[in-house]
Amino acid sequence: MIAAPDGRAERLAAAVADAGLEMAIVGDLVRPGDSGRDAMADVAWLTGFFGSSGLAVVGAGTRAFLTDFRYATRAADTVPESFRVVDATGEIVVELARLLAGRVGIDPAKTSVECHRKLAEAVGEGVEIVAVGGLVADLRRVKDEAEIAAIAAAAELADEVYAGIEEGGLAGRTEREVALAAEARMRELGAEGPSFPTIVAAGPNAAQPHAVPGEREIGAGEYVIVDMGAILDGYCSDCTRTLVDGEPDPGRREVYELVLAAQRAGLEAIRGGVGGRVADAIAREVIASAGYGERFGHGLGHGVGIEVHEPPRLSKRSDDVLRAGEVVTVEPGVYVPGEFGIRIEDLVVVTADGHRNLSTYPK
Amino acid sequence: MIAAPDGRAERLAAAVADAGLEMAIVGDLVRPGDSGRDAMADVAWLTGFFGSSGLAVVGAGTRAFLTDFRYATRAADTVPESFRVVDATGEIVVELARLLAGRVGIDPAKTSVECHRKLAEAVGEGVEIVAVGGLVADLRRVKDEAEIAAIAAAAELADEVYAGIEEGGLAGRTEREVALAAEARMRELGAEGPSFPTIVAAGPNAAQPHAVPGEREIGAGEYVIVDMGAILDGYCSDCTRTLVDGEPDPGRREVYELVLAAQRAGLEAIRGGVGGRVADAIAREVIASAGYGERFGHGLGHGVGIEVHEPPRLSKRSDDVLRAGEVVTVEPGVYVPGEFGIRIEDLVVVTADGHRNLSTYPK
Repeated sequence: MIAAPDGRAERLAAAVADAGLEMAIVGDLVRPGDSGRDAMADVAWLTGFFGSSGLAVVGAGTRAFLTDFRYATRAADTVPESFRVVDATGEIVVELARLLAGRVGIDPAKTSVECHRKLAEAVGEGVEIVAVGGLVADLRRVKDEAEIAAIAAAAELADEVYAGIEEGGLAGRTEREVALAAEARMRELGAEGPSFPTIVAAGPNAAQPHAVPGEREIGAGEYVIVDMGAILDGYCSDCTRTLVDGEPDPGRREVYELVLAAQRAGLEAIRGGVGGRVADAIAREVIASAGYGERFGHGLGHGVGIEVHEPPRLSKRSDDVLRAGEVVTVEPGVYVPGEFGIRIEDLVVVTADGHRNLSTYPK
Repeated sequence: MIAAPDGRAERLAAAVADAGLEMAIVGDLVRPGDSGRDAMADVAWLTGFFGSSGLAVVGAGTRAFLTDFRYATRAADTVPESFRVVDATGEIVVELARLLAGRVGIDPAKTSVECHRKLAEAVGEGVEIVAVGGLVADLRRVKDEAEIAAIAAAAELADEVYAGIEEGGLAGRTEREVALAAEARMRELGAEGPSFPTIVAAGPNAAQPHAVPGEREIGAGEYVIVDMGAILDGYCSDCTRTLVDGEPDPGRREVYELVLAAQRAGLEAIRGGVGGRVADAIAREVIASAGYGERFGHGLGHGVGIEVHEPPRLSKRSDDVLRAGEVVTVEPGVYVPGEFGIRIEDLVVVTADGHRNLSTYPK
């Protein structure tokens, strides 16, 4: 994980004050003490700390970080010095409650009904728990230079893995073999791991957008969706190529070209100030006008950073407006159940007047 | 994933009725549609379905399963026929609300404050949302034969990986090298992957119970904590060995023997009807009486199944009472900051009068 600059806590403290709060709790209040990687993303962004136990409290004069016995050394090594590290080896919600005063924000998307009740019972007089969503998520959307560099390096690493896959050949190998080899290669190249379970889906399996690589042998001329990303320095990449070993059916090649045209239209639409719904509609129209509208069932893209899926969203229902410095995917697809599937995905940095493409592997 | 027997839905429906409810919602109401593996464990147990989008509704006459476009094929292939599969490609919480009637249970530990609010707003007249925790978690605690067989096979696979680690030698390799080789070997042997990021922590790093494998070379005579598990057929294993390549310092060997004695005492204590707090206290007393009580900061163990950490808990604060058929870890440790750490962990099936040890790799 790249170190978290102290300026982040300052910016969050300003957002907390703007929201009319004395403090905000940052972190996983669903499974505190047994948190998964995604649930820790806000804390990691704020403090540089990753682990299964970590909560932060930030306000005008408050910088506290709670973790338990297992992570005392790691917290001392990673959390910025401005934070007071509090041992929460007991009930972490109870320890947390002791630190609170005034109006305290929790993120309602990251707090369970149970933790909310426990916290409300544990706080002292004069503490009011208020649901204020997305304070950190909003700050995380626009990436700084070090973050973009980490994501770009992760994308470059994945590009190298694609090259290895094509060199090794696809026809005659199983989906699972190819996926395992890809993940092993990522790690050899220095990745912490894949940013999600690698998808290798050939022939009819590719019609399932989230297929699990299986024992089926890939055939010559079959379109193979390879959707993968690497984690490097705590940041994810995400890319999809639809590869083919041999000559594809000409009718399907037409569909490939259609998806590629939709992707180009989507990429063209990306710039600061454009709505996620608008970008989605532009790419979707290309596919719909060719009669495949029903076969493109997911959104055009999503933000990528510490999490592989994070705001903003590019979809029919998105209210997000893109900002320069955001990193998003552009990934239209066409899926014909029982027959084949094609998806093409690039990872791009939004700029004021366009985008910079981080996925350089040929399409 | 092994197929979910239909009896599970029947047992859950009975528990739902016992709780005074018409129906219960099963699944992840924190990030529905973008759920991680652990968040899907209840749904996987009930239906055999794994994926990032899936919710179930169960009541006396109700068996419904909601997923989106991406998983239509997988749902048709895996979810038992007694369930009606409902397409929830739109807003999943809104689709869910349409299916509800009467008093409907949600799990407050698996529902965010935000989803709770959305759901409460979306339900029709006469629907009452009630927080009832752990209906499925409680049923999941006692494993059936197929589940125990899957966990035992995962444990056996991990034992084989330990043998490979010792054959390959430890001294002179980095922690990260050993961890990557172990995870690659797991996959070669057929595992879906590791059940958590493999811990390889040598020398002073081993004093951090949740250390991340680093680039430090392992020294001869250093104690190396290797904590790992495999996922096979959807079920996890979990085991820790503290290995040493060369001759350890005699003073530290004494501590190793102490942890082993504590572990044996903990294992001896395991049987149906024993409290998780009691088993913890028995092992803890061995370590405390030798003056290392402060150096054993975590609980004695936890349940293992679809999730690597699940109920019951064996700890100072546990109110759980062990039942025959549960699968739990027994893993005392001693950690001396800056110097060394030792942990020994077995995975056992609780029986009426004792336990069956699934971890056979020598200690």
